[in-house]
Formats: sequence, structure tokens, C-alpha cells
Amino acid sequence: MSPPLRIDPIAEARRHWTARWGGRPARPMAAVTSIMRAQQVLLARLNGLLRPYGLTFPRYEALMLLSFTRTGALPLGKIGERLQVHRTSVTNIVDKLEADGLVRRVPHANDRRATLAAITDEGRETAARATAALNDAAFGIDALCSDEQEAVTALLRALRVDAGDFVDGP
Amino acid sequence: MSPPLRIDPIAEARRHWTARWGGRPARPMAAVTSIMRAQQVLLARLNGLLRPYGLTFPRYEALMLLSFTRTGALPLGKIGERLQVHRTSVTNIVDKLEADGLVRRVPHANDRRATLAAITDEGRETAARATAALNDAAFGIDALCSDEQEAVTALLRALRVDAGDFVDGP
Repeated sequence: MSPPLRIDPIAEARRHWTARWGGRPARPMAAVTSIMRAQQVLLARLNGLLRPYGLTFPRYEALMLLSFTRTGALPLGKIGERLQVHRTSVTNIVDKLEADGLVRRVPHANDRRATLAAITDEGRETAARATAALNDAAFGIDALCSDEQEAVTALLRALRVDAGDFVDGP
Repeated sequence: MSPPLRIDPIAEARRHWTARWGGRPARPMAAVTSIMRAQQVLLARLNGLLRPYGLTFPRYEALMLLSFTRTGALPLGKIGERLQVHRTSVTNIVDKLEADGLVRRVPHANDRRATLAAITDEGRETAARATAALNDAAFGIDALCSDEQEAVTALLRALRVDAGDFVDGP
């Protein structure tokens, strides 16, 4: 890891932006660059926390999604929809989880072309232990207090609606 | 792209989290998952906006960093520090920019082991045109108003300080 910079690189970029293009475009630039960097920091932390459980964050997310379903199983296509990742990524995620004994593939009862991923007992146990570790570490975001975390969630919700992730409603 | 879900998947995860582990760990989970998804949405938008200019967001960032320096050139190691990416990523980024004629590698005047990347005239022109496109599109985050964008930047600053990105000061 590099030593800390003496200046905030995003504040520095904002200064250049404002000088050339004015304050208006500098604001979204700073916000978006901040989100990019935050994601990079958090993903490294989450993957570090999950490594002892043999998981990465995308595999952890898939495991949790399955654990929350009534039957513990979902068609692969549905997993992709819910995690908003491509079909090939879902295949890779499920391949690795299956190789580790955390899920198994089972045929769909009503649709011969579809395959389900079903969480195993070992998968549930691993998911529970990994979740305890992530909860203890506040998902790597304990530099923000609880109210600030809630503010981030609320602010970014509009972007997720705008991206068509879900239908905004009451 | 999948049709929008009828429910907010993060609100749904929060509901499950709260039921199993209480409200306290549900808050950082929701915030971090929101940041992950926001990054995914924004990166796709930025790469889409930059495609006509033959750029990706990491290559664009490197080009802008060079354009902001006094001489238009920086050692590759310094680029990695400022963009907070690994040495190998910097090499890949500079390779591609060089192949496209947007930067050239030049030897360091005072350090024979170091190489500089220097932005070309074509690089400056491409950077300017790409920036106009990103500024016009508010970097893909116009679902948030200006004040909300500023709030995101301010909230995530604490995480970047916590990650040791820069020394917090007056």
C-alpha cells in the first residue's frame, strides 16, 4: 500500500475541474469519483473478511440470496436478476460454490430447461459464519456512523431507481 | 437488461437482516450494498459515454491526471499512487493509451530506472472532448440533485480517510 497522499485527490481534481469547467460539473465528478473509490475500498475489505470462509463478495451475495428463499433454491436466471449480474457470472459463481459443497445444482421440477441452485447445509453454516464476521466489522464501513450509513442508502436509492433496478412505489 | 423488480432488492435484504440479526447490522449492510450497486450502474454508464472516444473510465482518469500536471507527464509509479491502482494496471492503462497515440512513454530526466507517461496533443484533445460528454451527462448521476451529490461526496470522504487514501487536514 502507498503512504497516504498529503492532499485529497478528489478535492484536487475538483479544484482543476472548477477552474476549467466551473462548479456545476465539478459536483457530479466528485460524487461519482467518490463512489468509485468507496467501492474499491469496501470490496477489498469485504473480500479480506470473507477469505477465511473461502468466499468472495459475489459468492457470499449468492449464498445469502439462496438462504433467504423459502426452499433454499432458485433458478440460475433468477439469481442473475436479483444480483444484477450476467448469466456467465452466475454460472461462474455457482460453479465455484458447487465445487466447494456450498450449493448443488438440481433440475427444476416444472421446467426441464432450467436448473436450480440449492444451498446445502454446509452452505447455510458458512453463510451464517461469514455474516457474523461481516456484521462484526460493520461491512467495512464503520468510519461512518449509523445515521451516515442510512443517509448513503437513502441518497443512492434514487440512482438505483433511475437505473431501472426496481419499480419505485409506496 | 432484466425488467425492473417489483421490490427494492436492498430493502428486501434489509428486511431479512433485521429479522435475523437486528437493525444495527442491517444499516451498514444496506449502505455497502447500495455503494456496490451504484458503482456498477455508474461504471457501465461512464464506459458507455466514453466508448465513442475509445476510452474506458480508468484510461480516462489517467489521461485527466496527466492533463492536470504542469508538464503533462508523470512517472508510472506516481500515476498508480494517485489513481490508487496496482502497478500492473497502470502498465496496462498506459500501454493502451500509448497504442492509441494519446500518451507516449519518455525516459525520466533524473532517474534512469523510471519511465514517464506524457500526454500527447491528441491525448489532450480526446480528454477535452470526453470531459465535455461526461460533464453534459453529469457523470451519469443526474438522478441526484446537486446538493445530494455534494452530500454523497462529504459522507464518503470519511471512508477514504479511514482507508488511508490521504491525510485529513484543514
